[in-house]
Formats: sequence, C-alpha cells, structure tokens
Amino acid sequence: PQSKLPALGTNIFSQMSALAQKHNAINLSQGFPDFDGPEYLRQRLSVHVAEGSNQYAPMTGTAALRNAIVDKTEQAYGYRPDAETDITITSGATEALYIAITALVSPGDEVISFDPSYDCYAPAVQLAGGVSKRIQLLPPEFRVDWSKLADQITDRTKVIIINTPHNPTATAWSEQDVERLWQIVAERNIFVISDEVYEHICFAQDGHASVLRHPQLRQRAITVSSFGKTFHMTGWRVGYCQAPAAISAELRKIHQFLTFAITTPVQLALADMLREHPEHWQALPEFYQAKRDRLAQGLAKSRLKVLPSEGTYFLLVDYSEVSDLDDVAFCQWLVEHVGVAAIPLSVFCADPFPHKLIRLCFAKKEATLDAAAERLCQL
Amino acid sequence: PQSKLPALGTNIFSQMSALAQKHNAINLSQGFPDFDGPEYLRQRLSVHVAEGSNQYAPMTGTAALRNAIVDKTEQAYGYRPDAETDITITSGATEALYIAITALVSPGDEVISFDPSYDCYAPAVQLAGGVSKRIQLLPPEFRVDWSKLADQITDRTKVIIINTPHNPTATAWSEQDVERLWQIVAERNIFVISDEVYEHICFAQDGHASVLRHPQLRQRAITVSSFGKTFHMTGWRVGYCQAPAAISAELRKIHQFLTFAITTPVQLALADMLREHPEHWQALPEFYQAKRDRLAQGLAKSRLKVLPSEGTYFLLVDYSEVSDLDDVAFCQWLVEHVGVAAIPLSVFCADPFPHKLIRLCFAKKEATLDAAAERLCQL
Ligand SMILES: CSCCC(=O)C(=O)O
Ligand SMILES: CSCCC(=O)C(=O)O
Repeated sequence: PQSKLPALGTNIFSQMSALAQKHNAINLSQGFPDFDGPEYLRQRLSVHVAEGSNQYAPMTGTAALRNAIVDKTEQAYGYRPDAETDITITSGATEALYIAITALVSPGDEVISFDPSYDCYAPAVQLAGGVSKRIQLLPPEFRVDWSKLADQITDRTKVIIINTPHNPTATAWSEQDVERLWQIVAERNIFVISDEVYEHICFAQDGHASVLRHPQLRQRAITVSSFGKTFHMTGWRVGYCQAPAAISAELRKIHQFLTFAITTPVQLALADMLREHPEHWQALPEFYQAKRDRLAQGLAKSRLKVLPSEGTYFLLVDYSEVSDLDDVAFCQWLVEHVGVAAIPLSVFCADPFPHKLIRLCFAKKEATLDAAAERLCQL
Repeated sequence: PQSKLPALGTNIFSQMSALAQKHNAINLSQGFPDFDGPEYLRQRLSVHVAEGSNQYAPMTGTAALRNAIVDKTEQAYGYRPDAETDITITSGATEALYIAITALVSPGDEVISFDPSYDCYAPAVQLAGGVSKRIQLLPPEFRVDWSKLADQITDRTKVIIINTPHNPTATAWSEQDVERLWQIVAERNIFVISDEVYEHICFAQDGHASVLRHPQLRQRAITVSSFGKTFHMTGWRVGYCQAPAAISAELRKIHQFLTFAITTPVQLALADMLREHPEHWQALPEFYQAKRDRLAQGLAKSRLKVLPSEGTYFLLVDYSEVSDLDDVAFCQWLVEHVGVAAIPLSVFCADPFPHKLIRLCFAKKEATLDAAAERLCQL
C-alpha cells in the first residue's frame, strides 16, 4: 500500500535500544528505569487478577482510578477536576496525545510545537491532515521566544503543544511561562495540549508549573499524564488525559474506537497505589534528583559538559570537546566504542540542529549510573 | 471544539450495560464472560510482574508472544506467518482494526462493509477521510449477495472489511465465500481487512474459514484477532493483527504513535498460555457450543424464535410474536420490565433495519443462562 507516513523510519528509541543490546552497552538511551516499581503496586495487580477483575473496564476508565486521580490532582495542583466528565484513562500517554490531536485537528489546521520535540506529535498531526509548525528552541536554555511564537500564529492555528518538564531538553516552564502562553491564546480560538508526563519529576524551585494550576488556561487545555513514569512501570501502558467536559466528550469519541478500554486489573492496582501511597509520587523529585546528581558528579571529571536538568529523568551533555561528529554519528560511535547508548537531539527537530548535545537517561540504579560515568570519563 | 464525529452518541454496549446495572437485570448485552479466564494464565501474569517484566515491550510486541502466535496460526490454519515481519501486538482487536483502517484508507477512498456491522469500522473510516459503503445483509441467513457487492466496487474502492464469525448475526463464512471474495479482489488493487476475533468460537462443520487459509487472499489481507475472546479476559486488552511484511510495515507506523507498545507482563503471560495450553483454544468451540445450546434450549418453550448461531458467543432471537416495538424500544422495555439486557441490531446498520431481532450473549455461567431463559419464557 501507499504509505501514510512515508518519511518515517524505525524510531530512535527502538533503534538505540537494539544497538545497546547488540554491543552489550549500558543503555542510557530509551527512557525507562532499570529498577522495578513498588512492591505494593505489583501485589495489588496480582490481587485484582486473582479476584477476577478481568473483563472490560468502562470506556472512560474505572471509577476507582478516575476518583484517585481527582484527589491526586487536588493535592498536587489545588484544583479538583470532575472524575465523571474530565478524566479519560488511556493506553499510556501515547494514546492520550494521539486522541487529543485527532479530536482537535482537522485537515488544514495548524499546530505549533517546540523543537526539539517528542517524536509522536508530528505524525499524529499529519495523520489528522493538520500542518505542523515547529519552532526551534535554542541551547543551552531552550527558552521560548514569545514574539517568535506570536509571529507563527495565524487564523488556522488550532493547537499549541507544550511539554513541561521537557523531553529531551530537561528544561521546565515557570508559572510566568504558562501565564504568557495564556495571554497569547486568551483572545483566540486556540487549544493547548500540555504534555506533562514528567509532572512528578520536576526539580524546579517552585515545583511543576502545570497548566492545571491556571484557572483560565485549563479550560482550554488537554493535560496528558503518565503512570509509567510516575510508578517506574513503563511497560504497564496506562496514562490519562484531563480536559473540560466539552473537550473530553470529543476525546472520548476517538478513544472509544482506538482502544475502547484500558487493562482493568492494572487500573485498579494503580488506583490502590494512588490512594494508599501518595508519598510515592510526592517523594519522586528527591528520588530522581539524587540519581541526576550522581550521574552529573560522575561526569564532572569527564570532557563532557553537563547541562542543568530541571526535570524529567534525562540529562543533556555537550560533547564538543570530545568529537566533531554530528550527534547521530556520535551516538553510533559511542554505543559501539564506548559501550554507552544515548539519544541524539537532532532527531527531534524538523530543521537542522547543529549542536553537539546528546541525552542520557538517569532512571537507572546507582551501579548503572556509575558504570556509565566511568566509561564516559575515558572519552 | 467542533466535533470530528458529530453523529456519535454513547455506544450501545456502555449504554446497555449501564441500564442492566440500573435495573439490576441479567446482562446478556455487552459481549463479555461472567466467568474468569484460566487459572494458569492469571498465575503467569503474577509471575512476570513479580519477576520484573514491567518496562516497555518492543513496539511490535514481545518475541515470545509473536512466536507463540506463529505456532498457533500454523496449528489452526496450516500457514506459518513470519514472527518478525507479519505480526503486530495491539491494544485489543479495537486498536488492530483502527490501525488497519488508518494505514490503508486515504481521503476519498471507499471502504465496503456489511451491515449489521461492528460499530468501530465506520468511525475509523470517517476519521481517515474515507467513505463507507455499507451493504445490508438480510435475515435470517445474512448471506452476501455477491453481485450486489460487485456492483458497489469502483475505482476508489480501497478496502473491503469482512467479519467471520460475524458479530452481531452469529453467521460464519465458508471457504467458498472466501474464494468468491478473492475472485472479486484478485484483479483489483483492493485490500481486505478480516475481523476474525471469534476465530476460535466457530461451530461451523468445516471450522473457521480464515482468510489465512487462502494463499492468495492472505497476501492482500490484514487479519485481526483477539486474546480477550479466546481466553475469557476481555479486560486484558491484547489483540493482534497479521499481514504481509509490506502492509505490516505501514500498520506499525500507525501503531507506534497510537499506543507504542502493549502491556509487557500480559503479553508474556499470554505467550506462556499459548505455548503450554493449546488445548484451551482447541476446545473452545465445544465449550461455547454447550452454552449456546443451553440458552437455546432454555428458550425453546418461550415465544422467542432462536436463530441458528454458527459462531461468536452471540445468539439472535426474533421477538415478533411478543411485541410490535422496534428493536431499540424493545431492548429498553426488556431490560426494565423483564430484567434481561440485550442488544438491538438496528444500531449496527446505516440503513433502516426493520426486523424484530435482538442479540443475546451466551458467554455466561449456566446459572446466568438459565435465569435469563426463565425470565424470557415469561414473555
Ligand atoms: C515510548 S519509548 C521512548 C521512551 C521515552 O519517552 C523517551 O526515551 O523519550
Ligand atoms: C468493546 S465492548 C463490546 C463488546 C463486544 O464486542 C460486543 O458486545 O459486541
């Protein structure tokens, strides 16, 4: 058949993880923990499976999980969404982003996002017949140039996609950034899709600047979250989105035909975990900051320059002292000759990104981080 | 936002299951078992979760599950697909159908399906910008009128969607039907999406006429299967599709951005189950035929007329001796006043379907079937 996404090759995460395996390298490329999630959560899954919660969940998600999310949202952001109308459980944040884009974008609509940007936004926009307009953020700060953003807005702008804490740059928005975005969309008929999958892994002084904290913007926004990241279970495939009732109604029409419903016993286990152990997500910044600092310290004596990480479980390093290769070639060389797999940043950009930066994942055991640092110090 | 699917209301399955709960009725509407799947399968899930298989699976599915599917396909249909290139694990058959349609259908393409037809085909076609052409099959036999099908084919016909055993009519195709379909598409550039989620619940004398048995047609087809139905675990949300490498490559590009990967420990448990207990799916026709016959016998003395069921876990009954209401109104009346929830057939049709037929699900314990029959005998 003719391809709907002709430009698309194998994705960078599968590619680098395969290379890591082939070369027996330490895999700091694809973002996933090499340690397991909470014992309690795993036990609750077994209990719900044994007790027979194995048939279809409600299309929007189990009431238990939606209610637990409402409580968590209130604890985290001082805002109480409506469990019945606002929250939809999805097959990971990936499905949440896909249904958000598909529900909002019609042929010819323009969607603005910021590069380097996570790889699933643009294909979903393309499949919906939309036009991606990608604004490149510049290292080392990767801050939004607000006048550049304003310049890109037209009558056809339907959606702005933001992502904070930001994968792959590990930067985070402030509440002022959110307010500036609101100022831009307030008078226009523009929706915001806010990818906040690293919401509980934010090291910024004022915490995570969720759009859910913003009383006006959250009425115009779809916020996307991920349990895989929060509970160290990226293979369980449960995420969710929250949006006002009228937007959620449209999201759900797409969700109904994409996946219909999400694994029932996994939903119930996550609900138990949220209810019984809020300290897990509350302690996550501390947990991951220790890992971030350990890796950064391990690299202090290397010829790599570590950039600040304000959130996510990623860290950027500048390798310009080490090599003249472009980032893709450098990552290939690195996995083969140094035994460390990393992710190049240029693959997340529509325009050339001629910077010598790669992304390392620090969601790893201390031993893994130390071993990787040791190898990287030999560069 | 403007709706992408403006005509869509709450789906019939959620609606009827909610009414069943409200009226404390016996729920023979939405298709799911009221008994649990195999103990071994549930235990294997717990083992894989405990052993730490909780991070991202490969995008296409775990090798263990894809290999087990290859063996099962060979045992069932005498055909050995390629585990690496042909099989893609999905979030239930729902996602498999969605990615199949999205990969193949471009704006303006025509898609032929047969009514009454499962409710997820047409919205997926609409979201892809395609045009659905729906051919109504007529009771009581619901056989395809091949000349009518040939008449509907144009230069824009891209896909024909078939479904055997067929939900909601419980009819099944023969190998001659598959061959006739092949004759129609052979000389044309038309793909077939074959929804075979009830492949292992077929009571037809010659067994299930999978398109995978047809050496030419399977080169042009995407075949969709469901573990939820085969293992009585509709809430686990794992299905798959198989297609030749070139088609699978396009399916996977969509899958990658829809859900990326499917719940890892569930995939591993299903692989163990397939490998260790092939007798489970091999005995399924017998298992469900007993349930079908029990419900049919229970209704023998009622004023409902039971139609033959050649496959699926559904049974049609004709209520024309009982009521003049249309099928939607009759189902509403039935759940409220008789305490049995059923599914009207007209909701699966684009054109009027003025027949007095409703669908009953017999994937239920004997006690449930007996209690429902007793209530229905009072009509
Ligand atoms: C969906 S696999 C990629 C995991 C991830 O989010 C990342 O590495 O950025
Ligand atoms: C996806 S819920 C509907 C279950 C089902 O396939 C049916 O009842 O026909």
